[in-house]
Amino acid sequence: NSELVTLTYGALVAQMVKDLDNVDDVSKQLERLGYNMGIRLIEDYLAKTSTGRCHDLKDTADKIQSAFRMYLGVQPNVANWSAAGDEFSFILDTNPLTELVELPDDLKALKYCNIICGVIRGALEMVQMDVQSWIVQDQLKGDSNTEIRVKFIRRLEDAIPAGED
Amino acid sequence: NSELVTLTYGALVAQMVKDLDNVDDVSKQLERLGYNMGIRLIEDYLAKTSTGRCHDLKDTADKIQSAFRMYLGVQPNVANWSAAGDEFSFILDTNPLTELVELPDDLKALKYCNIICGVIRGALEMVQMDVQSWIVQDQLKGDSNTEIRVKFIRRLEDAIPAGED
Repeated sequence: NSELVTLTYGALVAQMVKDLDNVDDVSKQLERLGYNMGIRLIEDYLAKTSTGRCHDLKDTADKIQSAFRMYLGVQPNVANWSAAGDEFSFILDTNPLTELVELPDDLKALKYCNIICGVIRGALEMVQMDVQSWIVQDQLKGDSNTEIRVKFIRRLEDAIPAGED
Repeated sequence: NSELVTLTYGALVAQMVKDLDNVDDVSKQLERLGYNMGIRLIEDYLAKTSTGRCHDLKDTADKIQSAFRMYLGVQPNVANWSAAGDEFSFILDTNPLTELVELPDDLKALKYCNIICGVIRGALEMVQMDVQSWIVQDQLKGDSNTEIRVKFIRRLEDAIPAGED
């Protein structure tokens, strides 16, 4: 059930807006919070799905798609692949995080869902993938859906303890 | 899945601790946040369960028990009824909200789970029941389980629009 997440997240954002003067700082901090959640959520995801190593970025996209379903109860479409195959988007028709949310005029610049970008970045870093993630379209800004972009940067070195493998 | 709730709630509490000097103020504000969530969660609960009016407090306790299962993924025991039948407790052996949480010494007085008390109070108020709710035992304080007490205060007047019944 994602209703509790929606409400708790709304309370969190409201609290941060109250504390930080700058909307951009709130957006940044939401991404950072997401990153910190991602590096913990990945463990839970791997344990629950017994999933193996990703073959390629397409495979990675599919697995993140299933994580959306597990944790937010929605399945976004994977779309808008770059020609080079190193970038893609998640398209959400409905976004539990923003259900019933309306941004007042002075918060129009807030990247309300930046936590999702952070979660993706943090979770992937834990499986040796360095990515960037950002919001391209946003239903809170009047777009018809929410689009979250993911760009593969590089594979990180495995840190295998000496004596293992 | 409650993992995301755990992490989001942890971030929320951390944020509030950072902002408010006083631990008691954080506890109070968590209860108030819970109250605000409860008055919205009840709608979701009623819609999803198609549940009817509660016959008595025993019935109310059972329904809140099922709400715990729906939203937090745990089923607490209902126990410790008062002789007058107007008070009871939820006993949680495991509490998703506190999983992996440890309170530092300067926060030992924090009622970390006060949001749950607030949710119960807010949700019940929306179905015309005025209750008090507070934490009796707390695993975060070294108790063997978490006990949340609920005390029935009074039934609120139904506000039925004229012409309806």
